Amino acid sequence: MAQFKVGILGATGAVGQKFIRLLQNHEWFKIEALGASERSAGKSYKQAANWIESIPMPEDVSGIEVRNCTASEFGDVDFVFSGLDSSVATEVEADFAKAGIPVISNAKNYRTDPTVPLLVPEVNPDHISMIDKQTFTEDGSGWIVTNPNCVAVPLVMSLKPLYDNFGIKSVILTSMQAISGAGYPGVPSLDILGNVVPFIGGEEPKIAAEPLKLLGRLNDGVLQHADFPIQATATRVPVLNGHMLSIAVQLEKEADAEEVKKALKEWKSPIGDLKLPSAPNFPLNVFDDDFYPQPRLHADSQKGMQTAIGRVRNSNVLSISYIAMAHNTIRGAAGGAILNAELLVKKNYIK
Amino acid sequence: MAQFKVGILGATGAVGQKFIRLLQNHEWFKIEALGASERSAGKSYKQAANWIESIPMPEDVSGIEVRNCTASEFGDVDFVFSGLDSSVATEVEADFAKAGIPVISNAKNYRTDPTVPLLVPEVNPDHISMIDKQTFTEDGSGWIVTNPNCVAVPLVMSLKPLYDNFGIKSVILTSMQAISGAGYPGVPSLDILGNVVPFIGGEEPKIAAEPLKLLGRLNDGVLQHADFPIQATATRVPVLNGHMLSIAVQLEKEADAEEVKKALKEWKSPIGDLKLPSAPNFPLNVFDDDFYPQPRLHADSQKGMQTAIGRVRNSNVLSISYIAMAHNTIRGAAGGAILNAELLVKKNYIK
Amino acid sequence: MAQFKVGILGATGAVGQKFIRLLQNHEWFKIEALGASERSAGKSYKQAANWIESIPMPEDVSGIEVRNCTASEFGDVDFVFSGLDSSVATEVEADFAKAGIPVISNAKNYRTDPTVPLLVPEVNPDHISMIDKQTFTEDGSGWIVTNPNCVAVPLVMSLKPLYDNFGIKSVILTSMQAISGAGYPGVPSLDILGNVVPFIGGEEPKIAAEPLKLLGRLNDGVLQHADFPIQATATRVPVLNGHMLSIAVQLEKEADAEEVKKALKEWKSPIGDLKLPSAPNFPLNVFDDDFYPQPRLHADSQKGMQTAIGRVRNSNVLSISYIAMAHNTIRGAAGGAILNAELLVKKNYIK
Amino acid sequence: MAQFKVGILGATGAVGQKFIRLLQNHEWFKIEALGASERSAGKSYKQAANWIESIPMPEDVSGIEVRNCTASEFGDVDFVFSGLDSSVATEVEADFAKAGIPVISNAKNYRTDPTVPLLVPEVNPDHISMIDKQTFTEDGSGWIVTNPNCVAVPLVMSLKPLYDNFGIKSVILTSMQAISGAGYPGVPSLDILGNVVPFIGGEEPKIAAEPLKLLGRLNDGVLQHADFPIQATATRVPVLNGHMLSIAVQLEKEADAEEVKKALKEWKSPIGDLKLPSAPNFPLNVFDDDFYPQPRLHADSQKGMQTAIGRVRNSNVLSISYIAMAHNTIRGAAGGAILNAELLVKKNYIK
Repeated sequence: MAQFKVGILGATGAVGQKFIRLLQNHEWFKIEALGASERSAGKSYKQAANWIESIPMPEDVSGIEVRNCTASEFGDVDFVFSGLDSSVATEVEADFAKAGIPVISNAKNYRTDPTVPLLVPEVNPDHISMIDKQTFTEDGSGWIVTNPNCVAVPLVMSLKPLYDNFGIKSVILTSMQAISGAGYPGVPSLDILGNVVPFIGGEEPKIAAEPLKLLGRLNDGVLQHADFPIQATATRVPVLNGHMLSIAVQLEKEADAEEVKKALKEWKSPIGDLKLPSAPNFPLNVFDDDFYPQPRLHADSQKGMQTAIGRVRNSNVLSISYIAMAHNTIRGAAGGAILNAELLVKKNYIK
Repeated sequence: MAQFKVGILGATGAVGQKFIRLLQNHEWFKIEALGASERSAGKSYKQAANWIESIPMPEDVSGIEVRNCTASEFGDVDFVFSGLDSSVATEVEADFAKAGIPVISNAKNYRTDPTVPLLVPEVNPDHISMIDKQTFTEDGSGWIVTNPNCVAVPLVMSLKPLYDNFGIKSVILTSMQAISGAGYPGVPSLDILGNVVPFIGGEEPKIAAEPLKLLGRLNDGVLQHADFPIQATATRVPVLNGHMLSIAVQLEKEADAEEVKKALKEWKSPIGDLKLPSAPNFPLNVFDDDFYPQPRLHADSQKGMQTAIGRVRNSNVLSISYIAMAHNTIRGAAGGAILNAELLVKKNYIK
Repeated sequence: MAQFKVGILGATGAVGQKFIRLLQNHEWFKIEALGASERSAGKSYKQAANWIESIPMPEDVSGIEVRNCTASEFGDVDFVFSGLDSSVATEVEADFAKAGIPVISNAKNYRTDPTVPLLVPEVNPDHISMIDKQTFTEDGSGWIVTNPNCVAVPLVMSLKPLYDNFGIKSVILTSMQAISGAGYPGVPSLDILGNVVPFIGGEEPKIAAEPLKLLGRLNDGVLQHADFPIQATATRVPVLNGHMLSIAVQLEKEADAEEVKKALKEWKSPIGDLKLPSAPNFPLNVFDDDFYPQPRLHADSQKGMQTAIGRVRNSNVLSISYIAMAHNTIRGAAGGAILNAELLVKKNYIK
Repeated sequence: MAQFKVGILGATGAVGQKFIRLLQNHEWFKIEALGASERSAGKSYKQAANWIESIPMPEDVSGIEVRNCTASEFGDVDFVFSGLDSSVATEVEADFAKAGIPVISNAKNYRTDPTVPLLVPEVNPDHISMIDKQTFTEDGSGWIVTNPNCVAVPLVMSLKPLYDNFGIKSVILTSMQAISGAGYPGVPSLDILGNVVPFIGGEEPKIAAEPLKLLGRLNDGVLQHADFPIQATATRVPVLNGHMLSIAVQLEKEADAEEVKKALKEWKSPIGDLKLPSAPNFPLNVFDDDFYPQPRLHADSQKGMQTAIGRVRNSNVLSISYIAMAHNTIRGAAGGAILNAELLVKKNYIK
């Protein structure tokens, strides 16, 4: 398979660095260009970035000259990943799309746009047809696809089999989120060492809304969102990587924990046969051991791309209760975006 | 006020040590005797105990000779606090009660006994009359009173105003529990450093049952438990002290977050006028700041005896959602037991 | 004893907040005025400060209107504590001193000034006579006194008895420093959770130089610094409060660990009889237990004002080796400054 | 290259599990047998072991029936790795050696035996000839080789180039050791969360003695230990993996930091050409950045087999000072033992 040349927007930030790390030795994608703010443009990546990943900065990247995040400077790439800050993503991503450069974005700005797919390949691969309605370019060469909030990912991946098999009436969850989710410098250590913070600004509305778009159905090209209430309490815990969710679900059809567990275990990924390089072998890893999953033990499993599930049991208030956990900066951010790009290659949107 | 002579059973364990620490300079109670296992009996407390509190072992305690936990060796005390392990508490506590020595117990063994009060003074002070039905002694001189599980305490303290004002139909909660709740050596650091464990053996059934007894009503001396489902997910987090609970409640009467917050803020403790030495000035500390409460900042407030509440807000699934937090080994264990004893002094059960 | 009215410069920062906390209910000092940057001036302290202490913001302080750090606005105070950032302390502190307002500073700016005492009351109380040589005012009413770096404090407090009894030829130490030493937001959690950072910018030169001034001798009013090499490696560890030092010392006179331990235990504070409110009963707390001291267990002992020592033993390379530990933001910063002020009251410099 | 069949003694413990993990997909070695205590013998490994590694238990291992640690039950293996507890290693390892089964041991018991090589392949590969003097079997088929204490490994690896180039007069170090070094359950979380413990029982004498054997020279088959004093202070910090050492060295020949750094960077591993599967490409990774190395960022580099070095600088007390860090359970334990076995294969001791 020929390689695609990719650019990374917001390359010096935490998400940008994760893109760089995950794209090392990628079978299909080769980093061609790095974009960051004016302050960084013109410097070598080594000079511009405060590297925080736990592997050394890859040598083939350290010497790349950082560019401005302007489409005109990215004529040599096939598409871009965007790890841009939401304060600038609206304009910059549109600029690229209008210039005919596809944008695979981790930013939140276009997630709620009715023509932009909010995509988790195992959940709603059919939503990519929404791209056809985008009007950034006349010939359809430029478009935007987004991936969801890092809590919404394990939530929707675990809800999908329940939604399809039993229907969902309501969801209550409490998230225990890792510090890496706040980027760098992010959470001050004085706030979180030996502590739990019961609030994360801006998270709860995204957690409540995004799964409904992800579980939505296309009707004549128009997306009808799923319709049930989700109530989230987002907390921060002193964990490095891996957001854990304690979830309770009211199902439409009656089902007990055994049936639900069976549905989760037997669920078959719709992209399982596509052999996408970043796709986990088992997108849902359902544990029987009450003490699992744990972020430190399981966040990195399957290259950080699985959603781990445990403690599936009956609830005496709603129907069932369970734990879900996924690596927030891989499955829930850069890795998810890369998987999106891989699906879009297979489906000939990227070519 | 004259001083009472107290004994501590299980004095070398984590709860026993906390009793010793909290009873330093207590206005009413003076430590007279310490009981522990056969292995410790006969040794000085200094020799017997692996002291883990963050203040030095009090000098007046270090030289006390540890006794066996046998009532016959405790003839010189007015009552005992029990921090006994549940594997021995059933027999030992009965032995003391039968010998006419009141037992204020932190052990779980008698919590479900229909004649034994499960007591949180601010919640159900009237339940102490259940003591009159106990039959350990003919003259009523020996009896047992228990305090609840460390999660049940902040749960029931926050539910009480809701139960009285609006009625409760159901409760879902996720607890994030501190490591001190597991005693010493307790949780291995390899299990919890930078991690969350989604299960704590034995906790969830207690959390589901105990509040119903605590909110129960006495009818002709017979306790009728409250009747609504509670579903708990108990997790362990790398926090030293302070169990945090993320709670959602379905109320019987409709009420929005503002009304609920008002009820919590205006709630008046039924023991507020008794001037019990360990009673917090404000048993419920209701924060308006979304980022509060936090275990590291607020677990020690009001000598560790408050229940801190925050994030009271409407839920789109149940009626309301909020955070509650209390110091698990003070309010949720030894401090709660001491407050129980203080109430029982005021009510002339201890004399 | 009459109360003195004090001002706090840099009142919204981490050190300023610690001053406010420690001055609650102080026997001699009453907070009269708070100074901060222009951005904060004119606001109430509650509005201006991002309060990070683990007790609620004191009510009598929350309503105080923050002033600019200009001497002309502080005519109503007897002296000021300075928790100013080093970027502004040089000018602001001189401005106050010139206006006849004594400055008790925690900033590093004047520590190396040959006329400014670098003061630890238990170590070099006689150095306060250096004040007489200061020329900020003609009548001597305005002057500056500083306290040392937070590592230098436990270092010099433990070296003092060795220096006086045996003489010192050289010192090697490795510090393991708490995150609170970096202020707020300070150390990003991504840098320190489950980690050690082997460098802290700017610390090592201060640790090497300040003890030599503190152990210096006044000759006709001129300070002769002590003269021996100190080599420090300053590391950051995931601890909240309490800097721990692993120290090895080459003595001038031969002495074994027992003699050194005896000298440390028998050392008598020169200010022990002055009954200063913040002075610890035992400035040096020498442990025999190999596992002590520990920052979490002992940083708060004696109101955070002790230097805890342990593991005194012979070294086969230098003469002896030991551990020292003190609370970095109390003994090593705000608490040390308050003790300085108390000594200066007793010695009639503040009146 | 043909595969060797290996047994693992102490297979259920923390070191045993690390052996199992590191031997997955090993080019030369295949796990054939697992030995543990009587309590485990006869059970499947899955039943017997409380698996604590962060990858799932390998499937090909989980079904293996655990054997007693008796040589007679291990007739089918080519050699064994020993992760035995020191309480049993003396007898069990001798039993295997006498039965003609080579033992590659991580236990401390035979480290000081004058006929047993204490081996770090990059440091003293010639010491393996000591095996020839062992008398466990007449034909030399059974023997024991050990690897050093987990702190001694990065210490001796960093000292080796200094010893060879400049000579060493003395060493002072403070270690900051990870919790995984204590095995499982190991360090209670109540002891180490947000804390530092200034003592680790039994470590310091090993750190002082083992490097001298490792740097020793063979004279007519008799090992002459190196002769200089090492003084160690061993502390425990809340880090998962990676022991960090703050080291100061007095050299025999004068040399400044630049020369020392050059010697470390230019040092050439004597086994560099052997292409041993577990050998790191760069056994010494010398950082120029003051903030490096850090255990969380660098412990896993080069499969956990490197010793990372940083902060090489002149000392004003001894000659130079620097930081060394290595993964304590890989480079400092199981991984080191596996590298030892690989060298012994290449040198035809294992065949």
